[in-house]
Amino acid sequence: MERITIIGLGLIGTSIGLALKRANLPGVEIVGTDKEPKHRSVAKRRGAVDQAESNLLNSVKGARLVIIAVPVVAIREVMELIGPHLEEGCLVTETGSTKADVGRWAQEVLPEGVSYVGGHPMAGKEQSGPEAADADLFQGAVYAVCPSPFATKQAVASVVGLADTLGARPYFVDSEEHDSYVAAVSHLPFLLSTALMMCTSKGLGWREMSRMAASGFRDMTRLASGDPMMHRDICVTNGDSIVHWLDESIKELYAIRNMVKDDPEALERTLIEAWEARQRWLNGELRGDPPGAELPNTSDAIMGLLMGENLARRARELTGNDRNEKNKYPKR
Amino acid sequence: MERITIIGLGLIGTSIGLALKRANLPGVEIVGTDKEPKHRSVAKRRGAVDQAESNLLNSVKGARLVIIAVPVVAIREVMELIGPHLEEGCLVTETGSTKADVGRWAQEVLPEGVSYVGGHPMAGKEQSGPEAADADLFQGAVYAVCPSPFATKQAVASVVGLADTLGARPYFVDSEEHDSYVAAVSHLPFLLSTALMMCTSKGLGWREMSRMAASGFRDMTRLASGDPMMHRDICVTNGDSIVHWLDESIKELYAIRNMVKDDPEALERTLIEAWEARQRWLNGELRGDPPGAELPNTSDAIMGLLMGENLARRARELTGNDRNEKNKYPKR
Repeated sequence: MERITIIGLGLIGTSIGLALKRANLPGVEIVGTDKEPKHRSVAKRRGAVDQAESNLLNSVKGARLVIIAVPVVAIREVMELIGPHLEEGCLVTETGSTKADVGRWAQEVLPEGVSYVGGHPMAGKEQSGPEAADADLFQGAVYAVCPSPFATKQAVASVVGLADTLGARPYFVDSEEHDSYVAAVSHLPFLLSTALMMCTSKGLGWREMSRMAASGFRDMTRLASGDPMMHRDICVTNGDSIVHWLDESIKELYAIRNMVKDDPEALERTLIEAWEARQRWLNGELRGDPPGAELPNTSDAIMGLLMGENLARRARELTGNDRNEKNKYPKR
Repeated sequence: MERITIIGLGLIGTSIGLALKRANLPGVEIVGTDKEPKHRSVAKRRGAVDQAESNLLNSVKGARLVIIAVPVVAIREVMELIGPHLEEGCLVTETGSTKADVGRWAQEVLPEGVSYVGGHPMAGKEQSGPEAADADLFQGAVYAVCPSPFATKQAVASVVGLADTLGARPYFVDSEEHDSYVAAVSHLPFLLSTALMMCTSKGLGWREMSRMAASGFRDMTRLASGDPMMHRDICVTNGDSIVHWLDESIKELYAIRNMVKDDPEALERTLIEAWEARQRWLNGELRGDPPGAELPNTSDAIMGLLMGENLARRARELTGNDRNEKNKYPKR
């Protein structure tokens, strides 16, 4: 049996476990670990892992692939702890929401002979914990892949294979670029959501006002119900980019404020422009095929890492589970 | 036959027609009118009106209830045009998103002997037009009812009955208060959504960035896909309140920006506070029963207006459609 270890059995770690178990990779054992006994037992009960291990160092023993799915600020410590216990040739990836700091930690902390490729599945929901996990969480989502300069081709292909196995669309991006992009399209949105919730709910009229809050308000404050600790961690590890985008949004809001006050024509143009920009985005005019499509878009890559290509082929023959065949005509 | 006239067969007007037709009020004829021939034919084809009338003045002839569902800035002109042609005892209501200006126009423009009660169904979607209309659009939604100081009890009860027939929850509120509340929970959200769409999409990195925009971004920009003209009209008729709330949101964002930069502890407290505030709102801790619940929460009120209480009772007996009975144990 080849071992995949998932460290952190929250929403993301447990969802990865559920999706990997569903993929039914032959000869693969999924081990999960978490500090929290309840997370371990829920993940085990839900069938996200074959084995829930309480000891972090035991969990990575002999693992070929280690997926770290803990809060981003805790990743460095996990890497420090497991580093000396990883097998030669092991691949470490993680699912942190910011990538530049994490990439630097991996270079500083992980031993030679261990590969590292950063990853970020762009999916989530406001609930957290293993109870909220879902094998379909990553279906169709973008999966940012940030290879370190020293990552081998095989290591990169394996993380692409992992993303593919989860049903996500791999997308290569430099880790610094990643952080500046997600500051705009992911972190700014949750801080706008927080600001809306704060400025409305602390006023005197909130009791009355809240009765009139409808679906628009509910949607616009949904992200404010995300895990506060996770959001704080993201802000701590991506502060510069987030401050930049908060400043941009404040400028924009101030311009809109002045249009509402004095310039209905300019306001109309802005509302139309925003409408059109969103329409173009929804229509995908700005998107081409995900760049990952050129790569081996298949979970064979992950099986190759685990057992070598020959063994993987043999396993497929034995199980009748020929993923090469299936992936010749990708449905996405 | 008693006549209800719907002026404006867009999303709201056509949805009202569909819901009224479904309620199957006995002896009632629904007439709809719209400047746009296509809107008239779609509303007729979808069964939202018994008759689609191209002439505005003809459409209100003999009507007992006139529902104006045109963009808020057009309401004054409609009132001026139809005023001299309304029958004594007619009730005029409208569905404008702001209420103070509209209430003043009604007092200035509508003739004596005609009642006016403002209304605002707090429901909608980003699509507009009669194709997007839905008999269930108002189900469970708050329906703000803003009586003029001169409205009769019967007139108020009729608009409450209308809201009830649409499946909405009537909520009494002064028109000035209404406008300040919706500025916070409805208009500020769509301008935040617009600002997010604008500040991200006009930057150089947007092409790359947009590929990483996921469900959070999609939800937070959804309101920016609302009808730009409707949003402009709302800003024009509710400018002072909106500017106030934009200023509040800018202050809040600037405070958050400084926390992201220098004060992770304060940021954590703010994120937790916002999380809690939303949880309380979702749990309805701040809401009691809708105040409308004490009132005759039934479409009898609307039938009473149309045909007098005795006739209404007789009609119920004939159709076996005893709404009083049904409404003794409201399921909401």
